[in-house]
Formats: sequence, structure tokens, C-alpha cells
Amino acid sequence: MGLSTVDAPVAPKAGGIDLLLHLGAADMVAVDALVRERMQSDVPLIPALAEHLIAAGGKRLRPLLTVAAARLCGQGLPNARKLAAAVEFIHTATLLHDDVVDGSSLRRGKVAAHLIWGGASSVLVGDFLFSRAFELMVETGSLRALNILATASRVISEGEVLQLTRSHDLNLDQKVYLEIISAKTAELFAAAAEAGAVAANASEVEVAALRSFGQKLGLAFQLADDALDYGGVTAALGKNAGDDFAEGKATLPLLLAVHRASGEDAAFWARTVGERRQEEGDFARARGLVLATGALQATVDLAQTYANEAKAALTVFSQGPWRAALEAAADFSVSRTA
Amino acid sequence: MGLSTVDAPVAPKAGGIDLLLHLGAADMVAVDALVRERMQSDVPLIPALAEHLIAAGGKRLRPLLTVAAARLCGQGLPNARKLAAAVEFIHTATLLHDDVVDGSSLRRGKVAAHLIWGGASSVLVGDFLFSRAFELMVETGSLRALNILATASRVISEGEVLQLTRSHDLNLDQKVYLEIISAKTAELFAAAAEAGAVAANASEVEVAALRSFGQKLGLAFQLADDALDYGGVTAALGKNAGDDFAEGKATLPLLLAVHRASGEDAAFWARTVGERRQEEGDFARARGLVLATGALQATVDLAQTYANEAKAALTVFSQGPWRAALEAAADFSVSRTA
Repeated sequence: MGLSTVDAPVAPKAGGIDLLLHLGAADMVAVDALVRERMQSDVPLIPALAEHLIAAGGKRLRPLLTVAAARLCGQGLPNARKLAAAVEFIHTATLLHDDVVDGSSLRRGKVAAHLIWGGASSVLVGDFLFSRAFELMVETGSLRALNILATASRVISEGEVLQLTRSHDLNLDQKVYLEIISAKTAELFAAAAEAGAVAANASEVEVAALRSFGQKLGLAFQLADDALDYGGVTAALGKNAGDDFAEGKATLPLLLAVHRASGEDAAFWARTVGERRQEEGDFARARGLVLATGALQATVDLAQTYANEAKAALTVFSQGPWRAALEAAADFSVSRTA
Repeated sequence: MGLSTVDAPVAPKAGGIDLLLHLGAADMVAVDALVRERMQSDVPLIPALAEHLIAAGGKRLRPLLTVAAARLCGQGLPNARKLAAAVEFIHTATLLHDDVVDGSSLRRGKVAAHLIWGGASSVLVGDFLFSRAFELMVETGSLRALNILATASRVISEGEVLQLTRSHDLNLDQKVYLEIISAKTAELFAAAAEAGAVAANASEVEVAALRSFGQKLGLAFQLADDALDYGGVTAALGKNAGDDFAEGKATLPLLLAVHRASGEDAAFWARTVGERRQEEGDFARARGLVLATGALQATVDLAQTYANEAKAALTVFSQGPWRAALEAAADFSVSRTA
């Protein structure tokens, strides 16, 4: 009797994000019900517009992070579910406002809400969801969680404004680019995980570890997204690749490729991104350049570095299915690019 | 010795809003300092845009209501000042988003921010100020005040969406019009006063009285505003009169005038507001009709009814300078129309 060290618990061999989705399924059904309940209003346009975006779904990675963090710390429900719903509302509000700001035409594979109901409705329904998020947080009675998510919302808006003012700068410093994605993306991942730990009354070490995990995961996620917009590192193009290039958005693959370009290639970037004069075939050439210069691989490598740091942050927790699932999610965020 | 009842404190004869502005001056200097401190950000566009709107000023009636409510209840500073700054941030965020939604060109006598910095910046800086408001509220440690203002923010957005979907409806029911102004205007007045009372640890009777005062004052204020947009009841036109008519906004003076119109006049309203085909001289005729049909006077009378109800709500408090100042403010909100 007794387990030999060989028999010590081993993290299940997780396939990407599936383990986390599987473990969190029951919680997320409850979170989804809460989201649908609280997006209701006597003003019919509000649930109609919210439903359009929320039904489109996606993986609900951010609220999933909140319930996973609480579960990893051993408790925290139903407050963790309320905070998860609040996180989803903040995220959805941000998407609604972003799409108006960017003039985007697609969101979660559907026509962007502002093109159906107008920009004014998207702005106001975003405000509604944002307020609802705070009402939900108040219900948990946790001033600490409120503070975490209020600060996150403020930092996100700062990141968005910074991006707005610098987004077409071909000479944007890599440091500023990382500041932007830290604020506009990683902050909500960090706050989502931290709030879940707080809901579980976790120790300060655990709270800090989960915040760090969320922050690094968010960075890895955004870097991978930016790489995917150039089709990832394999030959097969992602379906929606090319949007960032078309908008002349200063993401890391572009910034590195521009930095490494000279002569004709530099002139190509100046025309297509600097002056936004693009012709057919330009994206294929842009993609060729981000691949050939190693800019794309460098972006993916940096994403993997952050994913590794995310996983390292979890070593304060014992091995177990939730930790394994979060580790696999970190790797998944980068493996999407291959 | 001893004071006879004849010498009992008598409310000073207040001239309009001046007494409230005078009594609240020191508090409002502190609130203003807090507002300026908390609108700062490392992203330079944010304070620049916020400053544009906040420097333009106005009477700061809403935050003034918060500090006055706390003072009337005998205490509550510095938390009341923080909540007052939060109220001002919520109001400013709402103005920024509204101006984008309405495409307004002027705000507080200055060019609207979105025309200088673009709609995207106004949306995002609004989000920033909204988040800052919640950060300030968290600092007070009052979940109750947080709940009051989170709910108010949500109700305001609902009122704005309702207005957006019904604003050009010439047959809008007076009840729906009152619902709209209750939500988009009176709710923040109510919440501002209620939060001040809560900051002062006032009794439930006092909290309810101040909420009611704020709500009725907000209704009186908005009705008077809507009357002023047709130049008020005297012959002299207000400087910015005519905007609501030009936008075909279904405010009470218009709704009542339309309801009372027939024949040629009904055709006039159908063309100018229903179809938004306006010619020179149309506003003069519109103004003539709202005056001649008594629609304008009915609007002002309703405003006065609400102002009276606001004053009546204050009878739970003893006579004194703060109560007198708030009573005078209620009358002032209507007397502007004469």
C-alpha cells in the first residue's frame, strides 16, 4: 500500500482549451443564465441588441477564468458566478463601444450591432451593460472585487484611447505596444482571475498568483491574435486574416517587419500602412514579409514566453484538474497560431 | 433672556440658486479639486478632453445636491465629497456619450468634444470617467451608495435608449415622456441627493425624503429646460432656443401643442417635426403655437407642481439655511422659464 512517487498525481493530458471548457461547463451554464436574466430591460431594444452579441457567444474565456480561479481556490460560488457575469458584461460593453470606435463590420462572426441598430444604440447599450456589471458586483458585497473590476474598466479605456492615438504609428515602440495590449486586453484577464480568487477568500499569495496568471495569459492571447491576423505561422490562412493590415493597425508582427525592412520593402509599408493606399495582392506580400523577416515567429515566441510565465504562476497551487486545465488553456492560446 | 418664538430661525430670503451656491462654495471647491485630480491619466488625451468639458463648468447642480444633502443631514464629509465627484463624473460621461449619440455641436457653450477629438475619443473618455466614478465610490466603502449610483447609471442608459427609439414620435404619450425624463434626468438628481444622505448616515426617513426631493427637482428641472427650448413663457427668446424643435424632439411643449392642433397647424407639425422639413420662420411659428395653445404654460405649470412636491419632501427636516437653500433651488429651476 501507499503510493510510490511514480504514482503521484499527474496533470491529465489536456487537449487545448477543452479540459477547461469541460470542467467549467456547469458553472458556465449558471453564468449564462445570470447573464441572460440581467441583460433584460423594460426597453426592448436593450435585450435585443445584447442578445445579438451574447448569443453569438465565443468561448467566454474571461468569465470562465473567474469561475476557474474560484474553483482552483476551492470555493467562492455563487459570488464567483456573479462576478463572472459582471466580467462578461464589461467585456461585451467594451466590444460594443470598440466596434463603434473602429467602425468594425463583423463581431463574433455576425454583423456588428452598430450596423443594425446604429452607433448610438451600441454606445448606450454598452453603458447599460457596464452599469449592470456594477449592480451585480454590489450584490456580492465585495468591495475588493468591485475595486478590481472598476480599476480594470478604467485601465481598459486608457488602453483603448492610447491605441486610438497611436494605432497607425509605424515607429511605435514595442514597449508602448505591450502597454496597449496590457491595458486593453490583459488587464481584464488579470482582473477576471483575481476577482475569482477574491470571491473564494483565497490567500494573498493565491490572489496574486491568479492575477499574474490572468495577466500573462491575456498578453499571450493578444499576441497570438495579432499573429493570427497575418494567418499564423503555417501556410494555411486563418479565415479572418488581414483585418489589422487593412486597418493599418500597429501590431507587433507589423512593427517588427517594418523595423526589419529596407529599400523597396520599407516603401511598401510606407505606402500600404503609412498612407493606407492598398491594392490587391498587398496583403499576400505583407504576409510574406512578416514571415520572411521572422516578425511573425518572434511574435509567436513572445506569446509562448508569456504562456510559460502564466503556467509558472500556477505553481503555488497543488496539481489537480483545475490547475491542469488552466495550464492547457495557456498553451492553447499560443497553439492556435500554428 | 431666552429667545421668544418670534425670534425663531427664519429661512433667509433666498434669491434663486445663489444661496445654495454660496453655502456649498467651500465644499464645491474641494469637490472640484477632487474631480481635477481624478480625471488625470498617463494618456494625455484623457485629461485634455475631460478638462474641455469640466472647465466649461455650469452650476454643478448634481454634485452640489450630494454635498447639500449630506450637510442637511448634519455630516458625511469627506465621503459626501467623493460621492459628489463620482456624480459629476457619471454626469460628464453621460454628456460625452449623449453628444455623440445626438450629434450635438455645442455643449456648455463650447464646441462639443466629439467635434474636436472625434466620436471615438468621446465614447472612450466617457468610459474612463464612468470607471473613475466607481473607483471613487469604492473608496467611500459604502456599498449602499455604490448600489444607488450603479442603479442610477443603468436607469439613465435605459432612459436614453427609450428616448432614442421614441424621440420623433409626435403621438408620444405624456406618460412615456415623463418616464423618459424620469430616467434620463431625474434619476441622477434623486441618486445624487440620496447618496449624500447615505454618506451622512441619515435616518431612513431622511434618505427617502432627499431621494424624493432630488427626483421631483430633476423633473421640474427637465420640464423647465424643455420649456426654455421654446424660449420660455416671456417674449424674450433664450439664446439657444430652438434646438429641440430643429431636432424634432418629442418634448412636452411640442407634444401638447401637437395634441391641441388641427387643420393647418396639424399639417405644420407633420411637416416640420414628422418629416423634419423645416424652413426659415418655422421656429417662430412653432413657438407661437406652443404659446397660443397654452402648451408652454402647461409645461411650466407641471414643472412648478414638481418643484412644490420637491419642497414638500423637505418638511421632515427642521428649518435652517440648507433646507431654505434647497427650497429656493427648487423654485429657481422653474423661475428660469419666466
